[in-house]
Amino acid sequence: MLSHRCTCRVLYGDTDAMGIAYYGNYLRWFEMGRTELFRAIGVAYRTIEKGGIGLPVSEVFCKFHNPLKYDDILVIETGLDTTLRAGMKFDYRLLYEDEKTVAAVGYTKHAFLDDKGRVVRPPAYLRKVISQQSG
Amino acid sequence: MLSHRCTCRVLYGDTDAMGIAYYGNYLRWFEMGRTELFRAIGVAYRTIEKGGIGLPVSEVFCKFHNPLKYDDILVIETGLDTTLRAGMKFDYRLLYEDEKTVAAVGYTKHAFLDDKGRVVRPPAYLRKVISQQSG
Amino acid sequence: MLSHRCTCRVLYGDTDAMGIAYYGNYLRWFEMGRTELFRAIGVAYRTIEKGGIGLPVSEVFCKFHNPLKYDDILVIETGLDTTLRAGMKFDYRLLYEDEKTVAAVGYTKHAFLDDKGRVVRPPAYLRKVISQQSG
Amino acid sequence: MLSHRCTCRVLYGDTDAMGIAYYGNYLRWFEMGRTELFRAIGVAYRTIEKGGIGLPVSEVFCKFHNPLKYDDILVIETGLDTTLRAGMKFDYRLLYEDEKTVAAVGYTKHAFLDDKGRVVRPPAYLRKVISQQSG
Repeated sequence: MLSHRCTCRVLYGDTDAMGIAYYGNYLRWFEMGRTELFRAIGVAYRTIEKGGIGLPVSEVFCKFHNPLKYDDILVIETGLDTTLRAGMKFDYRLLYEDEKTVAAVGYTKHAFLDDKGRVVRPPAYLRKVISQQSG
Repeated sequence: MLSHRCTCRVLYGDTDAMGIAYYGNYLRWFEMGRTELFRAIGVAYRTIEKGGIGLPVSEVFCKFHNPLKYDDILVIETGLDTTLRAGMKFDYRLLYEDEKTVAAVGYTKHAFLDDKGRVVRPPAYLRKVISQQSG
Repeated sequence: MLSHRCTCRVLYGDTDAMGIAYYGNYLRWFEMGRTELFRAIGVAYRTIEKGGIGLPVSEVFCKFHNPLKYDDILVIETGLDTTLRAGMKFDYRLLYEDEKTVAAVGYTKHAFLDDKGRVVRPPAYLRKVISQQSG
Repeated sequence: MLSHRCTCRVLYGDTDAMGIAYYGNYLRWFEMGRTELFRAIGVAYRTIEKGGIGLPVSEVFCKFHNPLKYDDILVIETGLDTTLRAGMKFDYRLLYEDEKTVAAVGYTKHAFLDDKGRVVRPPAYLRKVISQQSG
């Protein structure tokens, strides 16, 4: 499995009146994780799109273990199942700065769609890059 | 099962550069749905909090079927499993304005926590209201 | 001056760890106000866009007088200066549910841009509708 | 004038259906800028709050010059007027990655409030740190 790690800090704008990060904002961190994973393997997500392919989210799951608070640094671990089929699946672990305490775990599923919204096979160059990385 | 229906319009601020509602914003609509369901049965969520009980989200799932676009009206259907135990589970269906086409389905799970973050039983008055409503 | 009034409820997702609505979210309410004003005069903003014209925000100002809290109902008053020139200016007042206490006041300025990003004159039908409404 | 520079990348979640960053999200970048400026001078904003002082935004202004798009890197320049009085004023310039093209400029004003919401003088240690930094 391909994986990548990046960090981010919790803004006031991410929190809510309970004093913790609002649950919808975890999905931004998931996005940040998969974007940086793509970049780390040399394929900017923007490049995929320029080839006429979109990767909208078809499914998301998140389990919240420990709250994130204002100004916390979180560690975003993103893993990619490299057996690409019709789509992609990313797994996420959000950790506290200690890199041990789990804040949340989850996944997203994505379909490859062409510019008419039809499901298509993953582009050949992407399959190649990913198989090389994971080989 | 208790259920409630409300509507909402998609703002520019809800959309992203793909031209559709950003996936993180669906969780705001889930929140709107469960808040209005609470209100419909006469228990503002704010009131529960004033009793020293919080209901943070412990788990969320969403499956995206059809995209929501700018200025669309969406119908939020929220259902509550009335067999309250340690927590609550809400089910959501987001529909197009035609009330037939499914935009997304999902659920959230919540734990009852006291002000020290300990899991507690649901408050008696809430159990009573919910059992009366669903009886 | 053309004006319109609509209401909205503060979600958890609008608040921050200070227990009040996050300042960036007021700009969503401004958007809601001007969208509903457009709709009230019979011109959906979406229709303007379909004519190949965009109205991006070129300037925003907001002064915060009294905080908005979770579950508050806010009243959004939007006014439109009907002397359209190269662009439009909207004025906003966000009020508490009592319709007296001012939460915030502000404005946005917008330019009419064609699909190549060039500043253009307001469309004739829009000028007509607005002059009829304000006449 | 004290100043600081940091960078950030535009997420999908920051953009809207016009294909550019939504105007409300610039206020998150302003927040990031002033938070990092505080940190750079050795005073985490969280520390100020722990002393019972809040710094809510009382006024915001932003002028949008050039759009920010998905995946763009933006440079956030934040300046602090060091003549603290009842409150603070931060100035912001958001630049393209070339560090020349201006995306937006703006400011925020903040009042020092105690935990009862009363305007108070800035804490002595903060005045000291800021005067040393700017001396």
